[in-house]
Amino acid sequence: MQNKKSIEVCLTPALLNLYDTKESVVVVIDILRATSSMVYGIDNGANAIIPVSQVEDCLNYADKGFLLAAERNGEVVEGYDFGNSPFSYSREKVKGRTIVLTTTNGTKALHMANAQAAQVVIGSFLNLKALCNWLRMQKRDVLLLCAGWKDKFNLEDTLFAGAVVNELRKDFTHFCDSCVAAEDIYLLAKDDLRSYLHKSSHSHRLAELNIEEDVKFCLQLDICEAIPVLVGEELVPLTLVCT
Amino acid sequence: MQNKKSIEVCLTPALLNLYDTKESVVVVIDILRATSSMVYGIDNGANAIIPVSQVEDCLNYADKGFLLAAERNGEVVEGYDFGNSPFSYSREKVKGRTIVLTTTNGTKALHMANAQAAQVVIGSFLNLKALCNWLRMQKRDVLLLCAGWKDKFNLEDTLFAGAVVNELRKDFTHFCDSCVAAEDIYLLAKDDLRSYLHKSSHSHRLAELNIEEDVKFCLQLDICEAIPVLVGEELVPLTLVCT
Repeated sequence: MQNKKSIEVCLTPALLNLYDTKESVVVVIDILRATSSMVYGIDNGANAIIPVSQVEDCLNYADKGFLLAAERNGEVVEGYDFGNSPFSYSREKVKGRTIVLTTTNGTKALHMANAQAAQVVIGSFLNLKALCNWLRMQKRDVLLLCAGWKDKFNLEDTLFAGAVVNELRKDFTHFCDSCVAAEDIYLLAKDDLRSYLHKSSHSHRLAELNIEEDVKFCLQLDICEAIPVLVGEELVPLTLVCT
Repeated sequence: MQNKKSIEVCLTPALLNLYDTKESVVVVIDILRATSSMVYGIDNGANAIIPVSQVEDCLNYADKGFLLAAERNGEVVEGYDFGNSPFSYSREKVKGRTIVLTTTNGTKALHMANAQAAQVVIGSFLNLKALCNWLRMQKRDVLLLCAGWKDKFNLEDTLFAGAVVNELRKDFTHFCDSCVAAEDIYLLAKDDLRSYLHKSSHSHRLAELNIEEDVKFCLQLDICEAIPVLVGEELVPLTLVCT
């Protein structure tokens, strides 16, 4: 008998209240750069990443040996160890460490998802295949939650949602209109994601910040196996939860 | 000097509060079927269309010689003259008449736009070219407001927004990420809009309602010249306002 699972794409956190996720896995997506860095950090052996809402919240974790990471409007907040550039989440920097992180869009989306979903995991191009293999095995509906930019739609998160829909098309039976749109945009863009993203507004913002190398990094496919999962208030490797 | 006008696509009314439209023209879009029928009705000589929020609001207009139109969940509400099928808005039915109309999504979007925009007009494939020619001549930013389905994204309204973006690309200088996505989906779909919409969830809902002929009708290009514009609480032909 066919498994009647549904997959939906929520294009911005401002629409999350329209979806019933009590029984669903929610995948939080903030490709440039929060969820890419989270995946990379957990893959590189970080013990945990604690997403917090406000820059000031990070300070509650000072003097505990944690790395403090804060980004606002694309830049590292002054006085913090680092922001959300994936290059800050390398093995030598994060292995065995716990990172407290706040970002403009990604951590907000995470907290919103955490308040209502059965399970919350982190997606990025870096762990696309591992994530899809895992989602395929779950007996749950899936909501792909794009963090967007200040509650508006953005291209890069939607492209990744489309990549997941495309990968899972044979394994799910119900697809919403935003799945169709996201998948079609992904299929248009997939041969050269970076060129496609040059059309995006965020890409212009990022160009001004001189982080083109970050963008290139975040668009790499399947260089990580880790799937960060939210347990309580912390992101930890999924394997720790499953075993 | 180049005119620095911007064009944005608001994918659902639930995101409208993110946009500053005080100085903008807002185009309300509910392709299946409210705004298609409004355009067709005004083009066919209706004096005015009065959009109201609630089915009960229509009753305030009873006994005034108005036609009463009410649709909920795709069907005509019992006891009303008609709903939002474009075939009800033919010349012989509406010429010289005023229609009071409430629909599931379109009239709500109209009221939301009316509360904050400089000017509100109605778009559909039926008046695409006339609308774009007029928008091109305005010295205002444009927001394309998709009515969606119960505050969620839908394909048909986004396709139309993409068609407008495509038509106006040379005349505007600022485009948001949702413009890029809407235009690319439109370019994918434009050679056979009807086939493309078979992918959509609303298309399945409409198939169950047996209104495939309505869908075909609403996807016709440029059969109307009229641009309905909101003046006070009434939609009237734009020419009346301009002359």
